[in-house]
Amino acid sequence: MHRTAVKKVVLEGVLDANDALAEANRQQFDHAGNFVVNMMSSPGAGKTALLEHTLDRTLGKVRIGVLEGDVQTTLDADRLARFHTPIVQVNTDAGFGGECHLDANMVRSGLAELPLHDIDVLVIENVGNLVCPAEFKVGEDARVMVYSITEGEEKPLKYPLMFRSADLVLVNKVDLLPHLHFDLELFLRNLDAVNPGVERILTSAATGEGVDEWCSWLTERAGV
Amino acid sequence: MHRTAVKKVVLEGVLDANDALAEANRQQFDHAGNFVVNMMSSPGAGKTALLEHTLDRTLGKVRIGVLEGDVQTTLDADRLARFHTPIVQVNTDAGFGGECHLDANMVRSGLAELPLHDIDVLVIENVGNLVCPAEFKVGEDARVMVYSITEGEEKPLKYPLMFRSADLVLVNKVDLLPHLHFDLELFLRNLDAVNPGVERILTSAATGEGVDEWCSWLTERAGV
Repeated sequence: MHRTAVKKVVLEGVLDANDALAEANRQQFDHAGNFVVNMMSSPGAGKTALLEHTLDRTLGKVRIGVLEGDVQTTLDADRLARFHTPIVQVNTDAGFGGECHLDANMVRSGLAELPLHDIDVLVIENVGNLVCPAEFKVGEDARVMVYSITEGEEKPLKYPLMFRSADLVLVNKVDLLPHLHFDLELFLRNLDAVNPGVERILTSAATGEGVDEWCSWLTERAGV
Repeated sequence: MHRTAVKKVVLEGVLDANDALAEANRQQFDHAGNFVVNMMSSPGAGKTALLEHTLDRTLGKVRIGVLEGDVQTTLDADRLARFHTPIVQVNTDAGFGGECHLDANMVRSGLAELPLHDIDVLVIENVGNLVCPAEFKVGEDARVMVYSITEGEEKPLKYPLMFRSADLVLVNKVDLLPHLHFDLELFLRNLDAVNPGVERILTSAATGEGVDEWCSWLTERAGV
């Protein structure tokens, strides 16, 4: 019991500091005129693959910058480097395998490396994790969750905070629908149970399905 | 900088307490003669589906108990209830959406509800997360990681602590190989890069492939 009590107090302190830093990030984004998306998902749900499509389709029309969050490696940033857009990698690795999420301070540490005034949209690709990233504001305008249909229909009920905090859910890997025992209607009912009416787009990075719709959402919301 | 320093001290304290409780759990398991598996994976990689197969194939031969860890819901425990094996659900939900892992104290809180002396094998199904569960010993004999091939080849490099701490990797959903752009050889090379020679079994909960081999591994290691 003692441990739990101590931990709670510390966590509240951390979240307060986080909110203050998220607000500072927000001011910086407003000053530079950035629309900022916090992109979250399980590991391997397809964030980077969808980002590759996004950069490909918006090249020359929207100036997109990327802040890549990972525990270790620059593999995702390396995948996106060919688009020659501003990218910064933030690794959370520090003791015990690294933090399992980005917080406002980690994002802030990467902002100095980005030419924010030359960017319309900043996409923050969070660490792959369905729990903790949802707990930390980083100063974003919108939260976009990528959900892979390979993960099962019940995930909104098991990880409600993440699904509830999303402004848009990209229901990804729908090209695999014929090969899975996956009840899409049931998943969407579960999604509506925790976040009624939340916007959702069916996508596939393999076939490109839904990517145009997602890019339209992004540019409309960004006002570019 | 101040926040980081404070956090580090607290985290070390937590881990010390966790190790002490893991040791206490271990003594309890030894006394009852339990072989204990800590089963970890991303959300939706197939832990529960493989457990359903495991319980089905070992029914009447091995007495398996299950401790189900989830942020919220009893959905996984409900799926396993039809096997009439001892199951206890531990939910980590408490403030901010719940902890993203099981620790030794959470496991301990569930042990009182399990008839350990009537169990040969205890399977602890951890919260779906590729980062934090690997940081917390719970008193287990072996760590079994379920990895879904839908997650991409590079995950061992991006989440090395989890892959490195595994005694066995179940490479799951191999029935989807024909439908994915997935390089199995590359994945296995990445796996060996972080955990050279670690045991691995290719499995599919959809077709049953590899399930016999996994059940043999489990019963041999448990000595039953």
